[in-house]
Amino acid sequence: MIDRTRVKAALDWIDKNVAPLGVDFGSVIDAVGRVLAEPVDATADIPRFDRAAIDGIAVRAEETVGASAYNPLSFRLVPQGEALPKLGAARVDAGEPLPTGADTVVPLEYASLDAAGGYEIIEPVEAGGHVEHAGSHAARDAILLPAGRELRPYDIGLLALAGVSHVPVIRRPAVRIVVTGRGLSQSDAPSSSAAVYDTDGPLLRALVQRDGGILADLCHIDRDRRKLHDALTAPGLDILLVAGATGNGTDDFAGAVLAEVGELAIHGVALSPGESAGMGRAGAGALVFLLPGAPAACLWAYELFAGRAIRRLGGRNPALPFRSTEMLTNRKIVSRIGVTEICPVRCRDNRSVEPIASFAEAGLMSASRADGFVIIPEGSEGFPEGAAVTVYLQQGFDAPSSLISEGPDPKS
Amino acid sequence: MIDRTRVKAALDWIDKNVAPLGVDFGSVIDAVGRVLAEPVDATADIPRFDRAAIDGIAVRAEETVGASAYNPLSFRLVPQGEALPKLGAARVDAGEPLPTGADTVVPLEYASLDAAGGYEIIEPVEAGGHVEHAGSHAARDAILLPAGRELRPYDIGLLALAGVSHVPVIRRPAVRIVVTGRGLSQSDAPSSSAAVYDTDGPLLRALVQRDGGILADLCHIDRDRRKLHDALTAPGLDILLVAGATGNGTDDFAGAVLAEVGELAIHGVALSPGESAGMGRAGAGALVFLLPGAPAACLWAYELFAGRAIRRLGGRNPALPFRSTEMLTNRKIVSRIGVTEICPVRCRDNRSVEPIASFAEAGLMSASRADGFVIIPEGSEGFPEGAAVTVYLQQGFDAPSSLISEGPDPKS
Repeated sequence: MIDRTRVKAALDWIDKNVAPLGVDFGSVIDAVGRVLAEPVDATADIPRFDRAAIDGIAVRAEETVGASAYNPLSFRLVPQGEALPKLGAARVDAGEPLPTGADTVVPLEYASLDAAGGYEIIEPVEAGGHVEHAGSHAARDAILLPAGRELRPYDIGLLALAGVSHVPVIRRPAVRIVVTGRGLSQSDAPSSSAAVYDTDGPLLRALVQRDGGILADLCHIDRDRRKLHDALTAPGLDILLVAGATGNGTDDFAGAVLAEVGELAIHGVALSPGESAGMGRAGAGALVFLLPGAPAACLWAYELFAGRAIRRLGGRNPALPFRSTEMLTNRKIVSRIGVTEICPVRCRDNRSVEPIASFAEAGLMSASRADGFVIIPEGSEGFPEGAAVTVYLQQGFDAPSSLISEGPDPKS
Repeated sequence: MIDRTRVKAALDWIDKNVAPLGVDFGSVIDAVGRVLAEPVDATADIPRFDRAAIDGIAVRAEETVGASAYNPLSFRLVPQGEALPKLGAARVDAGEPLPTGADTVVPLEYASLDAAGGYEIIEPVEAGGHVEHAGSHAARDAILLPAGRELRPYDIGLLALAGVSHVPVIRRPAVRIVVTGRGLSQSDAPSSSAAVYDTDGPLLRALVQRDGGILADLCHIDRDRRKLHDALTAPGLDILLVAGATGNGTDDFAGAVLAEVGELAIHGVALSPGESAGMGRAGAGALVFLLPGAPAACLWAYELFAGRAIRRLGGRNPALPFRSTEMLTNRKIVSRIGVTEICPVRCRDNRSVEPIASFAEAGLMSASRADGFVIIPEGSEGFPEGAAVTVYLQQGFDAPSSLISEGPDPKS
């Protein structure tokens, strides 16, 4: 039997052995979701110059004193780009620079063209009125975005606005997925009644993508020990995920091969599902995670361990990429003592959850059907009905509950 | 001046005029984030056959009755794939089919090889023990995933497991972005002190991507009326976004051109920022959204209107793609009556928010710096300090507050 390391010790091994990768310079246009390696500063004032905040007439404020409907003041129209002479006015649109000499913008409703082709102004305006001053949004050298920021669409706009075309981002980890299952069919192969379809490959590929990794390749090696050896020694990878061949089965050789070519630091974890997980390093230094072949176990060994490493390599929050919230159990949840167990749950409302068919009972169906998960620590036998538990909610759970019915619609 | 339609009326126009697009058959491998057009059923039982749940010895349960350490029972080893004779046993690994005749799996710790090359069993096991029965995860024809599901990584695993290679998904909307700004520089052009960088293009591109649209093209047409005319009449697009030239400026021709080539249904909305937004249809029937050129106004006209249309076309939840939650204001928020206003806020803790520099004061900086937004309905003058308000939280806000400090780490 495999010795079982505590989940905490496995997490500690990852945190000690995995640090963020180096820096890439990435194009801002393609940088949504990338992680800033360094802060980005404004290289110039934003805006760069004093500009009109509205469509209107740029003038000197002091020259509008006394203007009213009964006392319209006349200004001479000056072409765009020229400095304002005394009693000059220029038509400006929102965003355009104020002409030299102007210090305010009169709204169009307080100005009208006069017979001479100039403007009559019927309201005095303060200096600085309807003007966006240079540097008022951000001064030169101000920090626009902090290091560690996972760039959002709005940030891309801000960087473009600041004239930044490339940003220092943390390199995305290059991942190889090795599936060892025996005689697996791919789901696009002709169907046969006895077919066992490769599940771990597509599942891991989607998870690696979610966590910001780049899939270098995905290979199926059946149970070929030599091919695993070769896969683990190839250069150029940051992390390898080996699915299957890691338990007590007759030809479960993954642990032995990893020990041969590098270091098998941990093999077997007190986690359910996922107990045959392992981790270490290949000869060339790449991280290696051994994941159980059974899909639900593969999933959880990935989520807690391999995914954490990929997220750390990429400079992301290493924690589970789920939102956590406190809710009440409305049925009891039982768990074996000595093992960290993952319990799939469904939300009954925004406050309570109930356990659904376990991974042992329904495999990956349970993962897909769950609104979220409760993690039962190894020292616990579970939770009674009515207990407060931390629930990790799957992405998308919010949508039906709050984003439609509780009204993100700003219909007033 | 442009008449201003109420936000609610603009949302109603969208909901009435925009329906989900047709169906594509997409490869499961690339289907994360796609939306199912129809439910997906299991075409066969999952699992397809009775199989071992653990590594062990497959036998007939009735033949183990009476087994104990003092009374080990002998079984004859049968090669894999053969039917079990009376008192036969077969070594099986987890996931392998049970041989014909077997109905249980004895864990390895209760079996040992005997001198004759057979097995001795020292514990009786029940029929069905450690067996996953055909159809126990999902029966043939059961619904695996419902219509409307935005596919998650776990769903991809489940579909692969079920042998599904392609799924009916809603077609992604094809989007053209037309930027009308005058003399804009791209952020990768050589910098000059007077440059105004195109912000709306990169911003809209990132937003369209977030909402599941496909960017057909992004063109810069300066203020060329003819080019806008051509851009609005090109075939093959589902939706066009026109940034700029939509206000009261001297050459704001977007509304007029749209009215010429199709229908300008709404122009001007009581929304701040975003009041010069418009919407309608081009000649060929594509939806057209006119967005203000000022970046923060462009953003909010997109978020409330154009984004809603793109999300509806793609079969997604049309609401704002933010999580909403109730929080308390810890400073008062003021708003003009008669206008729906967006107020950027920062979270002080998990329960309260305070307004930060407005869009008028800091433009897109406010959007990027905000943790979330409060939408103040047109009938309201704002909220006093201590009022409960609905906050739309930006993605990523959760990370610092709950995913690190409150401990998603299952360290027990």
